[in-house]
Amino acid sequence: MKKNAFYAQSGGVTSVINATAGALILEAKRHKNIGKIYAGKNGILGALREELIDTSKESKSSIESLKFRPGGVFGSCRFKLKDLESSNKEYKRLIEVFKAHNIGYFFYNGGNDSADTAFKVSQISKKLNYPIHCIAIPKTVDNDLALTDCCPGFGSAAKYIATSILEASLDVQSMSETSTKVFILEVMGRHAGWMAASSALARSEKGDAPHIILLPEITFNQNNFLLAVKESVKKNRYCVVVVSEGVKNSRGKFLAESDLKDAFGHSQLGGVAPYLSNLINTKLKLKNHWAVSDYLQRSARHIASETDLKQAESVGVHAVRYAANGMNGVMPIIVRGKGKKYSWKVEPASLSKIANVEKKLPNSYISKNGMDVTSRAIEYLSPLIEGESFPNFKKGIPEIKKLKLIEIQKKLPLWR
Amino acid sequence: MKKNAFYAQSGGVTSVINATAGALILEAKRHKNIGKIYAGKNGILGALREELIDTSKESKSSIESLKFRPGGVFGSCRFKLKDLESSNKEYKRLIEVFKAHNIGYFFYNGGNDSADTAFKVSQISKKLNYPIHCIAIPKTVDNDLALTDCCPGFGSAAKYIATSILEASLDVQSMSETSTKVFILEVMGRHAGWMAASSALARSEKGDAPHIILLPEITFNQNNFLLAVKESVKKNRYCVVVVSEGVKNSRGKFLAESDLKDAFGHSQLGGVAPYLSNLINTKLKLKNHWAVSDYLQRSARHIASETDLKQAESVGVHAVRYAANGMNGVMPIIVRGKGKKYSWKVEPASLSKIANVEKKLPNSYISKNGMDVTSRAIEYLSPLIEGESFPNFKKGIPEIKKLKLIEIQKKLPLWR
Repeated sequence: MKKNAFYAQSGGVTSVINATAGALILEAKRHKNIGKIYAGKNGILGALREELIDTSKESKSSIESLKFRPGGVFGSCRFKLKDLESSNKEYKRLIEVFKAHNIGYFFYNGGNDSADTAFKVSQISKKLNYPIHCIAIPKTVDNDLALTDCCPGFGSAAKYIATSILEASLDVQSMSETSTKVFILEVMGRHAGWMAASSALARSEKGDAPHIILLPEITFNQNNFLLAVKESVKKNRYCVVVVSEGVKNSRGKFLAESDLKDAFGHSQLGGVAPYLSNLINTKLKLKNHWAVSDYLQRSARHIASETDLKQAESVGVHAVRYAANGMNGVMPIIVRGKGKKYSWKVEPASLSKIANVEKKLPNSYISKNGMDVTSRAIEYLSPLIEGESFPNFKKGIPEIKKLKLIEIQKKLPLWR
Repeated sequence: MKKNAFYAQSGGVTSVINATAGALILEAKRHKNIGKIYAGKNGILGALREELIDTSKESKSSIESLKFRPGGVFGSCRFKLKDLESSNKEYKRLIEVFKAHNIGYFFYNGGNDSADTAFKVSQISKKLNYPIHCIAIPKTVDNDLALTDCCPGFGSAAKYIATSILEASLDVQSMSETSTKVFILEVMGRHAGWMAASSALARSEKGDAPHIILLPEITFNQNNFLLAVKESVKKNRYCVVVVSEGVKNSRGKFLAESDLKDAFGHSQLGGVAPYLSNLINTKLKLKNHWAVSDYLQRSARHIASETDLKQAESVGVHAVRYAANGMNGVMPIIVRGKGKKYSWKVEPASLSKIANVEKKLPNSYISKNGMDVTSRAIEYLSPLIEGESFPNFKKGIPEIKKLKLIEIQKKLPLWR
C-alpha cells in the first residue's frame, strides 16, 4: 500500500546535508510504495506543528540543485525527544500527524541525538501500535557516530580545515621573520577531535604545518604546550596550532567555557583560540594571530569533498531503499573496503547500536606526546577529503537556487 | 646596458601576491636590458642582508605555479625605512648591495608603507647618486591605496568573505528556530572598511544576509547596534553581522584593542567578534555564534577572484615594462573603464601621490544608518570578485609546488 514519507533535518547542519535530502527525494520518486515526500519545516518541529513542506511542488532542477546548497534547506532544529514515557505527548502528536497525512516512512537526518530519537520513533510501531518505517540517516561534521566508518559532512569540513591550514600556514611562514610567529586555528569538536586531526592532511613534508594539534581527547597541559610552541618556532621559525573547541584542563573544565547552554544541555563553546593567544602573549611574548572558523567550516560547500558528497547522496538513496523494503530502526552506514585502495559501500546497521554512542579518536590515532596524530590517523582521514565538486558561481559567489518550500494544508488543531 | 633586477614582497601578504611575482619574473625575461631577477629573502631585509634568491634557478613551471600559491613565496617583512636622513645607514647599505650585484631595477610589492619606502628609494638616484629604476607594485587586501581603482589581493579576500557569509548565513538561517539567532564574522580592515563592505555581495534579495555591516569609518553606537540586531531577528528570524577589526568606540578606542604593536607601530587587533557576542549575550540574551577569519581571508587562494588574479599579474607585467622603459618612482595602478560593462587597464601613477595616503570608504558608499553599504558600493565592488581560478588539487588539498629558493653568493661583509 502506498504511504507518504516524512523527512527531517536535525541538529547542526553540514555543507552536504541537502545533498542527502536531494538524493533521497529523487530516489523516493522511483519507488511505487512511496507517495509524497514531506519535509519537516525546522526538523522534527515541523512534524509536531504539522508544518510539512511538499517537496513534489519543487522542480526536478530545484531538487538537483540541493547538492550545491549548504545549511539545511528545510530548516533544522535542536529539539530532543526523550523516552516514550517522558515525551509521551510528543510521540502521540507525531502519530496523529503521521496518521492525518498517511505517513508510513520517517527519515531522520542527524547526528547522535537524532539517532536516539529515530530509534525511539522506530519503536512506536510496537509500543504505540502505529506502523512506521523509521530510518536514521547519518550526518555530522563531528564524525562521532558509532559503526559507520565516517559521517557525511565530516569529509567536507575536514577538507576545508586542511586547505585553510595549508593556505594560512604559507601566509604565516612568509611573515615570520619580522611579524607573526604563531598562528592558532580553533575548529569545532566538542568531545571528539576528528576535525582538529584532519588539519594534519595539510602536510606534505616534515616540518610542515600544523605543528601542534590539541584534541579534546587529551587533557591540556600548559607547560608541554608552551614548550612545543617554543620548540617549533626555534626549529621552523613559526608555529601553527590547531585546537578543538572542546579541549579541557586537568579539572575537566573547557578552556573556554561560556555560561550558555543549548537545548540539548550542552555548553556553548568558543574562544579557546583567544585563550591560547593570550597564554602565548604573556608567557612566551611571541607575536601571534588566531582565527575561529565556527560555522564557516561546516557550511563551506564551495570546497566540499567529492567523496563526502557522494557518500551523503548514497546514504539518502539507501535510506529510501531500506524503508521501501520494509526495514525499520536502521541507519545506512559507510563501510570501508579492506583493500589498499580506498573503497566504500553502504550497509544497514541497527539504531540500537548507534544511539547515544560517541566515537572518539582511538588512542592509536593520537601521537605519544598527545599533541599530534599518527600515520594511522592520516591513512584513515586522507581518502575522505579526496575530490572536488565546485558549485556554479554567479556574480562571483556560489549560485543558490531558491526553493518554493510550500507547506501542505493543516488538518489538525494547532500543537501547544 | 644590462642591469639586474631586485624584487621584494612587503607587509601582509595576499593570496595573489605570488601571481604578481610570477608574472613579473616571466615578463622580465623578455626584456634585453634586464639581466637576472633576484628576489629578496624576507622582503627588503633580503637586500640589506644580501640574501638574494636567484629566480633564474627555478624552472619555468615553478615560476608559473606561483599563480596558485598564497603567502609570499620569497618571504615578506614588516620593516619600515624612514626618510633618507634617519635611515641613512640602511639606504647606503641598499646601494652597496645594489652596486655589488649590478642591480638597476627595484620592484617593491606592497601596500601603503611600502609605497612610501619605494618612493624614498626612487629618490636615491638623485640624492645619493645611484641610478635606479624603482617601481612600487600595489598589493593589499585592505584596498586602501590611493589612485588605483582597487588593490590586487582585495578582490580575492572580498570573494572569500562574500562566499563565507553566503554559506554561513544559510547555516544560521536553518538553525535559527531553536538555536543560533545571531552570527558574527570579524574581518580584517584596520582603518578602511572595504573588506567588511564586500560581504554585502553575498546578497541576492532583500532580507538576505548580512543584515548589519560595522565599518571602521563609523563610530560604534552600542544602542543602535543592539536595536538593529533585535529588529533583524524579529524580521528575518536571524541576524548576520560582519564587523571590521578596526571598529572604534566614541572615545576613539578600538573595541577590541590588545597591547601588542607591530613593527610599524600599529596596534595588533583581534577579538571584536567575541566583544559583540558578549554584548548580545548580556544585553539581548540571544544565542549567537562568532567566527574570526584572520589570515584565512587573505590566503584563501582556492577561492581567488579571477579578476583579481589577472590584475595581480598585470601590475607585475607593467611594472617591468615601466622599469625597462626608464621610468622611476611610479606604481602601475588599475584604472576602471567608464563604460557600463566593467573594464580595466593598467597605467603608471606617481608614487609621490600614493605614498602614505589611505583610501577609506567614501561617504557615498555608506548607508544612512551607518551599518550598511549603498548600491554605489555594490556597483564598485561587484566586478572585483568575478570569475574563478581554482588551483589544482592533489590528495584533496591545493597543490603547492616547492621552489628551490637558491641564494646567490654574498660579496659583502655581513650587515649589522
